[in-house]
Amino acid sequence: MFKKSVEILDTTLRDGSQGANISFTLNDKIKIALMLDELGVDYIEGGWPGSNPKDEEFFKEIKKYSLSKAKIAAFGSTKRKDLSIYDDPSLNSIIKADVDVAVLFGKSWSLHVTDVLKVSKEENLDIVYDSIAYLKSHGLKVIFDAEHFYQGFKEDPDYALSVVKAAESAGADVITLADTNGGTPPFEIYEITKKVRETLHVKIGIHAHNDIGCAVANSLMAVKAGARHVQGTINGIGERTGNADLIQIIPTLILKMNLNVLNGYQSLKKLREVSRLVYEILGIPPNPYQPYVGDNAFAHKAGVHVDAVMKVPRAYEHIDPSLVGNDRKFVISELSGTANLVSYLQKLGIIVDKKDERLRKALNKIKELEAKGYSFDVGPASAILIALKELGYYENYINLEYWKVINENSGLSIGIVKVNSQLEVAEGVGPVNAIDKALRMALQRVFPEISNVKLIDYRVILPGEIKNTESVVRVTIEFTDGKINWRTEGVSKSVIEASVMALIDGLDYYLQLKKRLKVLDNIYSM
Amino acid sequence: MFKKSVEILDTTLRDGSQGANISFTLNDKIKIALMLDELGVDYIEGGWPGSNPKDEEFFKEIKKYSLSKAKIAAFGSTKRKDLSIYDDPSLNSIIKADVDVAVLFGKSWSLHVTDVLKVSKEENLDIVYDSIAYLKSHGLKVIFDAEHFYQGFKEDPDYALSVVKAAESAGADVITLADTNGGTPPFEIYEITKKVRETLHVKIGIHAHNDIGCAVANSLMAVKAGARHVQGTINGIGERTGNADLIQIIPTLILKMNLNVLNGYQSLKKLREVSRLVYEILGIPPNPYQPYVGDNAFAHKAGVHVDAVMKVPRAYEHIDPSLVGNDRKFVISELSGTANLVSYLQKLGIIVDKKDERLRKALNKIKELEAKGYSFDVGPASAILIALKELGYYENYINLEYWKVINENSGLSIGIVKVNSQLEVAEGVGPVNAIDKALRMALQRVFPEISNVKLIDYRVILPGEIKNTESVVRVTIEFTDGKINWRTEGVSKSVIEASVMALIDGLDYYLQLKKRLKVLDNIYSM
Repeated sequence: MFKKSVEILDTTLRDGSQGANISFTLNDKIKIALMLDELGVDYIEGGWPGSNPKDEEFFKEIKKYSLSKAKIAAFGSTKRKDLSIYDDPSLNSIIKADVDVAVLFGKSWSLHVTDVLKVSKEENLDIVYDSIAYLKSHGLKVIFDAEHFYQGFKEDPDYALSVVKAAESAGADVITLADTNGGTPPFEIYEITKKVRETLHVKIGIHAHNDIGCAVANSLMAVKAGARHVQGTINGIGERTGNADLIQIIPTLILKMNLNVLNGYQSLKKLREVSRLVYEILGIPPNPYQPYVGDNAFAHKAGVHVDAVMKVPRAYEHIDPSLVGNDRKFVISELSGTANLVSYLQKLGIIVDKKDERLRKALNKIKELEAKGYSFDVGPASAILIALKELGYYENYINLEYWKVINENSGLSIGIVKVNSQLEVAEGVGPVNAIDKALRMALQRVFPEISNVKLIDYRVILPGEIKNTESVVRVTIEFTDGKINWRTEGVSKSVIEASVMALIDGLDYYLQLKKRLKVLDNIYSM
Repeated sequence: MFKKSVEILDTTLRDGSQGANISFTLNDKIKIALMLDELGVDYIEGGWPGSNPKDEEFFKEIKKYSLSKAKIAAFGSTKRKDLSIYDDPSLNSIIKADVDVAVLFGKSWSLHVTDVLKVSKEENLDIVYDSIAYLKSHGLKVIFDAEHFYQGFKEDPDYALSVVKAAESAGADVITLADTNGGTPPFEIYEITKKVRETLHVKIGIHAHNDIGCAVANSLMAVKAGARHVQGTINGIGERTGNADLIQIIPTLILKMNLNVLNGYQSLKKLREVSRLVYEILGIPPNPYQPYVGDNAFAHKAGVHVDAVMKVPRAYEHIDPSLVGNDRKFVISELSGTANLVSYLQKLGIIVDKKDERLRKALNKIKELEAKGYSFDVGPASAILIALKELGYYENYINLEYWKVINENSGLSIGIVKVNSQLEVAEGVGPVNAIDKALRMALQRVFPEISNVKLIDYRVILPGEIKNTESVVRVTIEFTDGKINWRTEGVSKSVIEASVMALIDGLDYYLQLKKRLKVLDNIYSM
């Protein structure tokens, strides 16, 4: 038996770009479009050709590439009330964009018809009908987006239905119900979509926004009610609180609802990578809590939990993380036992027995430090360094003999370090930056690979009581070499000292890692 | 007609603290509990007293405060299979915590019973029954959390139901259905909750996790199906992808489902503030896209849209943003925010018209600073200082001519300041402490009242992107004189400079305040 299919329209490049602080270059748009095609999406909404020149360029440029599956769609509004369809700039710019598919939005909430558009309800029906028929007569596939449909239906169901009926009779290929202000709860989405499903014969779509935190669920509820076309964006980027996140919707449609979506399991495996790439293009740090693909999506913290998940994964995980290109992660903390540490070490190619006495010693040290304000689920790399030392796998690459910071109101920040007998001085934009620079100057000659290491997060927290700035501070730093990320920490009464400790640990961890990987590579190549 | 009521259990302090990178001090926990009580939540789940000493301390400490409404609940598991209830450490530690309410979790998925707990299905029913009956016999209200209930129901509905029936007959006051692995879609949550609703007579609750991005919707669907008790955390913090976000659920229950929740509209107004405070305590930058309370939740683009939203707000906004303590935001407008500032100034006895040109100037300065990384809802005292200057109410008490910090690995931290022509040097446990000491030495001779001022919180956050420790940092400091608290901030590329700015603002604000209060006292005594 064939499974039911649901088609996916990605509007990252159009509705997604409406989000605050979101801006794509033409190059970015091409990059994302090619990636979406590879992912297997059915439609890529590339932009609104009438609204800005960058979008028009995109439609020209993308023609130079041969896409394997995705159809490029151009967005636009129904015709203006005072113009004939033949003279309407929005409709004609869609035609000029020379695409196969048009996504046309029109009014379906009577309040918008009479108070915003300021035409009669009948006139709006004509506008919708004529605009669609015009595009159809030019051979385009037409997806009609009924703006504010759910709101409109709740206030004036007959009129809302008459709009989508007009769209159907004009030949629209898909009619998408849009929850434009994102305020409709999931049970209403289900009921209303179901009614439309019973009224129309054409394929129905859903376009959800996240204003009440339900965009993902609302998309699923619409599909449950019979929608077979879902619109959304990668990572849910979009205006206000964003659009429905396709990265979260797609796996549920495939894995939980058993529907035929994109290229099935093959597409799922790419989800995390696609999500990351869009974050990277936007310069936004990935959301570690993002369902399915986030760094913490399969992170286990409680000790008992960790033991159990290793024995019966499905007892604690709703899916196998590798299905969506993600990994199980164990968090090291005072709550957890040796199992977490063992699994971290395994990734470095170090196999240790859970009951190894050295491991227990390492864990005791970790617990002692946690009592002093460390929190190793926040900076696990610092905990692994302790374990490596206890296990005898640690090599001493960085010997920090002295450091000093001078900082004053002129803006001057000077960092002095003596590392491995070498004295260096550097000026920075702040004391931590100055020390970081001096450290790298001292280390890069011997360890040039350190130049790959970048800091991507820096946090300061007071883990304990504060007594007039005498409190202990915990600094956490996240590092990356472009491929993997790691977090370290330092605890001290001085924010500078804590920062220096976390910096040193971060560079040290990378050097230990590099050595381990070399060992691993040797083993693999034998 | 009375509206139906839904009670709220907040588990930020228990399940929330299971999240990666989440760690609360005892002080944080007390602060959050008091804030939740003020918000009007019904139950505050304070921790798992059997699992760690920090949680036990919380239950002792919170007794020193009189809460207005919230009941403190202690969490724990059903008894261990090999122990009698009388000897069970988990049950007895709940009793020892001396609270009114116990939240007890037990197994309801047969896989967990046989493969994780490794007891027979019948034995588990006894464990559930006996554990609840034992706590009831000690006079506790018992909320039973049926772990993995939805998963369990799908695989073995009869057994899952028999567990909650056992809990009911043992006298549980609320039976919460937990979607522990967060993998159940909203339509299944609805169907299964409805079936349980039809089977049991006791109050039903929902405990959702966000693994498929549906925690908020799932909580709503359960309520739609008859649940009258919702568990979640502030900002959805929690293990993996987090728990259901109460900040998003509460407004939908009140505004869209017309239910009686917390203190209704009065609680809603505090939501944004509560959300912010928890982010601040965790040192996590607030999510600007968070539904209802995020900075972008009601952000409108410039142009026609902005015009339209001002004429017909409900055409583009699903609710009035002020209902949840948020603001409409226009990219081009400088109108928003005056009302806030006016109400702050009123508290200092300064009555200004909202349209006062000087106020607009102050607001422009504030907006400029916000673009550079300030966030005045986090440190309002610094914004008030700007307003006082523009309005001509500011008196220049502190003239900081020079400062310098020297910090080195020996532990030495020296702060040098020249304030009001007076040079001072002090040694501290860290650079911020050293500068703080030197500042006070210079100021206390002229302003002895400064000795009353204590620092009670110090936070460092990166408001923007990080470029190899070159990022801008925002330091927020909270001060108290024992009667009132105020928060200031400083933004700089140097963590030390930002700290000095926030320190100076904090002392300055206090001196301005003292003067205003003197003026007020004079007025009152006339």
